[in-house]
Amino acid sequence: MASPKICTESITVTTSGKGTYEITDQVSNILSHSRIRTGLATIFVRHTSCSLIIMENADPTARRDLEKFFDRLVPENQSYFEHNDEGSDDMPSHIRSVLTHSSEVIPVADGRMQLGTWQGVFLFEHRRVAHSRKIMVLIIGDPE
Amino acid sequence: MASPKICTESITVTTSGKGTYEITDQVSNILSHSRIRTGLATIFVRHTSCSLIIMENADPTARRDLEKFFDRLVPENQSYFEHNDEGSDDMPSHIRSVLTHSSEVIPVADGRMQLGTWQGVFLFEHRRVAHSRKIMVLIIGDPE
Amino acid sequence: MASPKICTESITVTTSGKGTYEITDQVSNILSHSRIRTGLATIFVRHTSCSLIIMENADPTARRDLEKFFDRLVPENQSYFEHNDEGSDDMPSHIRSVLTHSSEVIPVADGRMQLGTWQGVFLFEHRRVAHSRKIMVLIIGDPE
Repeated sequence: MASPKICTESITVTTSGKGTYEITDQVSNILSHSRIRTGLATIFVRHTSCSLIIMENADPTARRDLEKFFDRLVPENQSYFEHNDEGSDDMPSHIRSVLTHSSEVIPVADGRMQLGTWQGVFLFEHRRVAHSRKIMVLIIGDPE
Repeated sequence: MASPKICTESITVTTSGKGTYEITDQVSNILSHSRIRTGLATIFVRHTSCSLIIMENADPTARRDLEKFFDRLVPENQSYFEHNDEGSDDMPSHIRSVLTHSSEVIPVADGRMQLGTWQGVFLFEHRRVAHSRKIMVLIIGDPE
Repeated sequence: MASPKICTESITVTTSGKGTYEITDQVSNILSHSRIRTGLATIFVRHTSCSLIIMENADPTARRDLEKFFDRLVPENQSYFEHNDEGSDDMPSHIRSVLTHSSEVIPVADGRMQLGTWQGVFLFEHRRVAHSRKIMVLIIGDPE
């Protein structure tokens, strides 16, 4: 067996408010270019006010319901919040990030992420204002 | 040091309704067969309506309480849910998956997953109807 | 390219009650000693009543608000809890662990974890009594 190889690349996602932004194709393209056939793809977001999720990617109403659920689960303007220098969506954004994921780790086989039929990878933006979000993709594995 | 090796296998879990299904032994067996001594075991579920958790595996009441908590945290039949084509447990199942994990990553040393004494790996099924669930296990590391 | 290398070390964190304990520097030191330049750092906690999070590390009020949120999200003394042999903070500690993370996986480039400016790695202790917590750090990647 060939020696495992590591490939690292960055993705920048420009967000325009709270919501989910699919990045599956961008990660797949990085994987294709890496020529790694078998291994692990790690996706990591370098922020604490947005996060990553793997979610149903066929019906957009599923993501809308998810977003509405999170607005109710972590409401703004809680009387006990001390950290609100950047506005009422500041503290909820950190909590929503901790309740979801900074990284997603996905097995690679036959040169493809082994996502199920309905799984997509999404950046979950928790801030209202537009942001430029940095995501790192690191693939480790055996080349063809 | 020998060159790292990668081993991939699938597990199918047949579920019979909502609840937790332990898969620790199945993952341990795959690790044994891989003959990898030091590295990482990644467990990944290929669905968005069930998920993975690492949980107390000694006392079944702990898992029952966890399941009851999730039923309350993400209730069915919320008036704002739009995505319910597959029934009232459809949307809650996606939300519960996002709040838990699509993958668990566990260090391997001396040929064993480095789980603590009370840690087990579980598939967390969020749908009421029986399902056949696909889980991938990828182990990367140094053979003996 | 050189053959990837694996380095494993343990961290023990002595906790004195519920709260967040930063371990970023301890993980960075292990990474420095490993001399690995490019790869993955995996941090894994070997318990089910404390967990790991990546969180804003500049303003301590953000972590205090997070802790208060979790006290409300997973309250003690729920009438339906059966598992409370170790006290009223027992079952909530398992649920809080499942809602956060047993592992965090962080890409390494140029010999450093690729954390964003405000990201720190924290042990999140969910028990009131002092504990000695075992964390494993496994780094896999290319040496310089």
